[in-house]
Amino acid sequence: MPLGQRAGDKSDSRYCGVETDFDDDVPRVLSDNLSGGFDFLVAPLIDPSYRPSLSKRDVNGSSAIPFASSDLLLSPSQWSSHVVGKISSWIDLDSEDEELRMDSEFALKQEIAWASHLSLQACLLPPPRGGSCGNYARCVNQILQGINNMQLWLRVPLEKSEPMDEETSDATCNRSNGRFIDSWEWWNSFRLLCEHHSQLFVALDILSSLPSSNSLGRWFGEPVRAAIIHTDSFLTNARGFPCLSKRHQKLVTGLFNHSVQIVISGSLVHDISQGGIEGVPISNSDIHFEGTLIRHSLRPYLDYIAHLYQCMDPLPEQERFELGYRDFLQSPLQPLMDNLEAQTYETFEKDAVKYSQYQRAVCKALLDRVPDEMSSTTRMVLMVVGAGRGPLVRASLQAAEETGRKLKVYAVEKNPNAVVTLHSLIKLEGWEDMVTIISSDMRSWDAPEKADILVSELLGSFGDNELSPECLDGAQRFLKPDGISIPSSYTSFIQPVTASKLYNDVKLHRDLAHFETAYVVKLHRVARLAPSQQVFTFDHPEFSDKKSNQRYKKLRFKIPADTGSAMVHGFAGYFDATLYKDVHLGIEPTTATPNMFSWFPIFFPLRRPLCVPTGSPVEVHLWRCCSPTKVWYEWCVTEPSPLPLHNSNGRSYWVGL
Amino acid sequence: MPLGQRAGDKSDSRYCGVETDFDDDVPRVLSDNLSGGFDFLVAPLIDPSYRPSLSKRDVNGSSAIPFASSDLLLSPSQWSSHVVGKISSWIDLDSEDEELRMDSEFALKQEIAWASHLSLQACLLPPPRGGSCGNYARCVNQILQGINNMQLWLRVPLEKSEPMDEETSDATCNRSNGRFIDSWEWWNSFRLLCEHHSQLFVALDILSSLPSSNSLGRWFGEPVRAAIIHTDSFLTNARGFPCLSKRHQKLVTGLFNHSVQIVISGSLVHDISQGGIEGVPISNSDIHFEGTLIRHSLRPYLDYIAHLYQCMDPLPEQERFELGYRDFLQSPLQPLMDNLEAQTYETFEKDAVKYSQYQRAVCKALLDRVPDEMSSTTRMVLMVVGAGRGPLVRASLQAAEETGRKLKVYAVEKNPNAVVTLHSLIKLEGWEDMVTIISSDMRSWDAPEKADILVSELLGSFGDNELSPECLDGAQRFLKPDGISIPSSYTSFIQPVTASKLYNDVKLHRDLAHFETAYVVKLHRVARLAPSQQVFTFDHPEFSDKKSNQRYKKLRFKIPADTGSAMVHGFAGYFDATLYKDVHLGIEPTTATPNMFSWFPIFFPLRRPLCVPTGSPVEVHLWRCCSPTKVWYEWCVTEPSPLPLHNSNGRSYWVGL
Repeated sequence: MPLGQRAGDKSDSRYCGVETDFDDDVPRVLSDNLSGGFDFLVAPLIDPSYRPSLSKRDVNGSSAIPFASSDLLLSPSQWSSHVVGKISSWIDLDSEDEELRMDSEFALKQEIAWASHLSLQACLLPPPRGGSCGNYARCVNQILQGINNMQLWLRVPLEKSEPMDEETSDATCNRSNGRFIDSWEWWNSFRLLCEHHSQLFVALDILSSLPSSNSLGRWFGEPVRAAIIHTDSFLTNARGFPCLSKRHQKLVTGLFNHSVQIVISGSLVHDISQGGIEGVPISNSDIHFEGTLIRHSLRPYLDYIAHLYQCMDPLPEQERFELGYRDFLQSPLQPLMDNLEAQTYETFEKDAVKYSQYQRAVCKALLDRVPDEMSSTTRMVLMVVGAGRGPLVRASLQAAEETGRKLKVYAVEKNPNAVVTLHSLIKLEGWEDMVTIISSDMRSWDAPEKADILVSELLGSFGDNELSPECLDGAQRFLKPDGISIPSSYTSFIQPVTASKLYNDVKLHRDLAHFETAYVVKLHRVARLAPSQQVFTFDHPEFSDKKSNQRYKKLRFKIPADTGSAMVHGFAGYFDATLYKDVHLGIEPTTATPNMFSWFPIFFPLRRPLCVPTGSPVEVHLWRCCSPTKVWYEWCVTEPSPLPLHNSNGRSYWVGL
Repeated sequence: MPLGQRAGDKSDSRYCGVETDFDDDVPRVLSDNLSGGFDFLVAPLIDPSYRPSLSKRDVNGSSAIPFASSDLLLSPSQWSSHVVGKISSWIDLDSEDEELRMDSEFALKQEIAWASHLSLQACLLPPPRGGSCGNYARCVNQILQGINNMQLWLRVPLEKSEPMDEETSDATCNRSNGRFIDSWEWWNSFRLLCEHHSQLFVALDILSSLPSSNSLGRWFGEPVRAAIIHTDSFLTNARGFPCLSKRHQKLVTGLFNHSVQIVISGSLVHDISQGGIEGVPISNSDIHFEGTLIRHSLRPYLDYIAHLYQCMDPLPEQERFELGYRDFLQSPLQPLMDNLEAQTYETFEKDAVKYSQYQRAVCKALLDRVPDEMSSTTRMVLMVVGAGRGPLVRASLQAAEETGRKLKVYAVEKNPNAVVTLHSLIKLEGWEDMVTIISSDMRSWDAPEKADILVSELLGSFGDNELSPECLDGAQRFLKPDGISIPSSYTSFIQPVTASKLYNDVKLHRDLAHFETAYVVKLHRVARLAPSQQVFTFDHPEFSDKKSNQRYKKLRFKIPADTGSAMVHGFAGYFDATLYKDVHLGIEPTTATPNMFSWFPIFFPLRRPLCVPTGSPVEVHLWRCCSPTKVWYEWCVTEPSPLPLHNSNGRSYWVGL
């Protein structure tokens, strides 16, 4: 039974599991737990007392003893929907004892084969025991090459000890003394050995103490499928009921927001005589056994988790609208070479916040340029370059009306299909004497007069990536020497991110070109490792004769030391634009314009995941390169270790002029 | 004019160049230097006083001023055989000054284009100026994507400062304070950014002081094309002539042995009144100008280098025979699935040393098993399993003769083609009553009696890689309980190596499979970074019922701290076999059997070059895996940073049973 209803949330985080044992009566164990309110079980498939012994075994092998004497004990859909197989925890593939190692390999493969036969959705692998885990990873990697749909969840305790003192925050020092634990590194090593296999996931064991929030943040970029909370990690509230610390609550909410399922583990450690959790009524699904109410012994913990789930704010409408786009890589537009479709205009025009910012900018510009006493005699010439179906024309005319200034508008648009709609809009609104429509590319149009104000919306997710600089260079010919451009400048930003989902999606294409392409993507399962930094800035107009739209920037990112070591899969990119004076527009997370949905971030992938030791800076270089026919980015990393240059000569990704 | 004749040496190291300037009379400069004894010039193509200025340039650009007013000044073959273009050294692509950076990019591309037009074989790029060199590398990388055959030689000073003291030998510490110089790291960073491009080479500047020999050793695994020796790096001998220090001499000899060309640079700094170098007669090629002998001012240095070249020992015959195999990757054999060809038997049988070791082993075994007093009454049963065309049959019979022991030989061979030759050999030699030929696979043969001695030569470069263990498992059925196997055991070894040539050759295939294959290869341009360590050992016979031919080994290599950081492209593998007691046979470099040529080393590549910081261990895992139909290796690295598991389930490389 799901934890509750949350408007818009269709993710797996609604389901809560329980870690339990099977006994001979598998169907009863399942039904008891389901009736007790849990959605699925995490349970061993094989009697833990069974251990194969290869050395004593005859050639044909021995058989394991599954709890379920037959796969028919449960229906196929019960097995697949309600049971996660828990692999025997005695298995130790990196033991010094060769016999134990060989037996472990045999048993692991045997158990996975049985789970696979049962069509389970997932198996939970025992935690790595620290160290290099080479043999465990090799064995799991062999299995991953062979299984079809089943997921493997590597159990990892959520644990990180702090460096001894400030002086030793250097990664090398910590690692070499061996006392330092960062379980994320175990996971990282394991998944690197298994080459980011897309069926390998994490199940986090949440313990009673938590590492720093920077350190926790790393997991949001990882494929975490489940979080196992032990009953002894719960505190007791004033009325004796289980509850979680503020930091645990925040973590659980974060997990819910990243579609992670909770699993309750352990036994009842809170002495609760009766009744539900504070403020939560007793559920109707409690079990009646021979007339007596029998509650699941872990029900208080489940109720508390459900309570946390239900207390979350509903998903904002914008988030709900964007759900389907989460972590979905979109190839960037070719805005100059291709014409946009009606659907795209439709979407853009719905962004009311964006146009109201433009209107504010035009208002301020008009007030600055035309003093009140001149307002009836002076008529400003405003050109909308790239007018599309007219939203900026409307915003400009509304600004004129609002400020009482007179305006003559030229609406320049290269897409003849949009021009059709523009003509009908002008007629419909009765703007014929204020607006002149020019069906032309702004770079080649020969304007009959010079403009006071040039208004454009040519920005991409990374600011200049849809070639706003080149277009406005072409357009500024017909701007008066003291004329202004709205936007007057824009700056791009990047920050390093962990994004294993995105990395895997790029890798799926099995070619170089996709690793050298920047994508537009609604970032979701992403860990932002350091504050974003400015990359390229363009100012308009720019009449200097040294003007070049080529750019080069070298940036050094410092990941906070309490994060620990980290994995960089690429760089998230944003922009911020100054429309006019203090009126800005942008998607850089810390300054983003609220409730605007025209732009998702951009993502520059790295061809290889980059491991960053604790305290080591990340040095990245970005170039904006221009040729007569195209513009492209190249990028590379030089620290902590150099990676190949990406997209040399724009071989994989470019925007045509 | 080459430095001299060295028997068997056909490499470029015979040619010596000179770094010089051009002036207006390009043909004269060339002919003066060639007549002076040099084979080629390293000279700037563009007047160094010319510097483009993009900001002042009109749209059509300005032209550089080449020394050669026309490409016709020299013939195409003169340009390509005798001139290496030296790129202007004012170029600084990582300057803080944006204008200088832009001008540098323009000039670099312009000069390369001119050199390319002249069909030069190579251009010498100015040294990186330390730091990350991101923009320099990006620009060179762009050029590399476009040029056809021309090589780019990155000039790198051969320089490495020692860590301050023992305590700070940790790489991170050295790097962060910025005072530590290791020019190999500049190169390493540059070529990683350029993705090991196969046309990017190194030209080393040899300075008057040299780093440690471990540090120097790294360069032998790199694509070093030239070594530039400055006249002020020469010492003066008792008679006033230039000479080099012992360490420099050793380095130059090493360079010669690795096909690196020497270039002399600088001006005459030794005051030599007349005459040739000590013991070296004045060359006949000195220039007579208006009747006067005019020697090239750098002639004493050239003479000394020629002297060093001529003093080298001639290449041993075996080395000469193997020249064509140097660094040439061979796919391993499938000895069980395929039959060898006559040519292969021919080559193997020529290895006299190998068979004399076998003969020694059989002698000792016979003497141990048959006391003198029993020699006339006891007849040993010896089985040669995998007899081929008979060399081990011959060695065994010779051993019997040498020791005066009586022998009955079974020669078991599965290749019916070899059996034909074997029959004719037996007839020819009159061995009919001593040798029984069995045309069968040893694994399935049903022997009529049990053997005292089992002799086999099933070893591959990595010992067990041609499935000797599986074959001998099959054959030991017909060995007496106290019978012996020759070989009685064998062990494989590996060591981490820098091998950029091999890495590039594997990469050429542009697929995963070739990076997951072990190759047989005569290692030449390779830096061995740490002493080899044992991997797998097999003993024969092995009657235990726990016997398994699966193996797992985890090894940690410690690269000597004075090496500095290093690059691992893969692991060189060897074997050593104990034939009988103290008679061994092997190719592990420190214990290799001299003058044996049957085996080249094996090479396990890494899918990605592995950077190893100073002092960091290299942890590698190797598995020998077995299934009913095949045997394969898997391998991976877990330190200093984890790499994906190689050859999972033998997907890329396996040996069939």
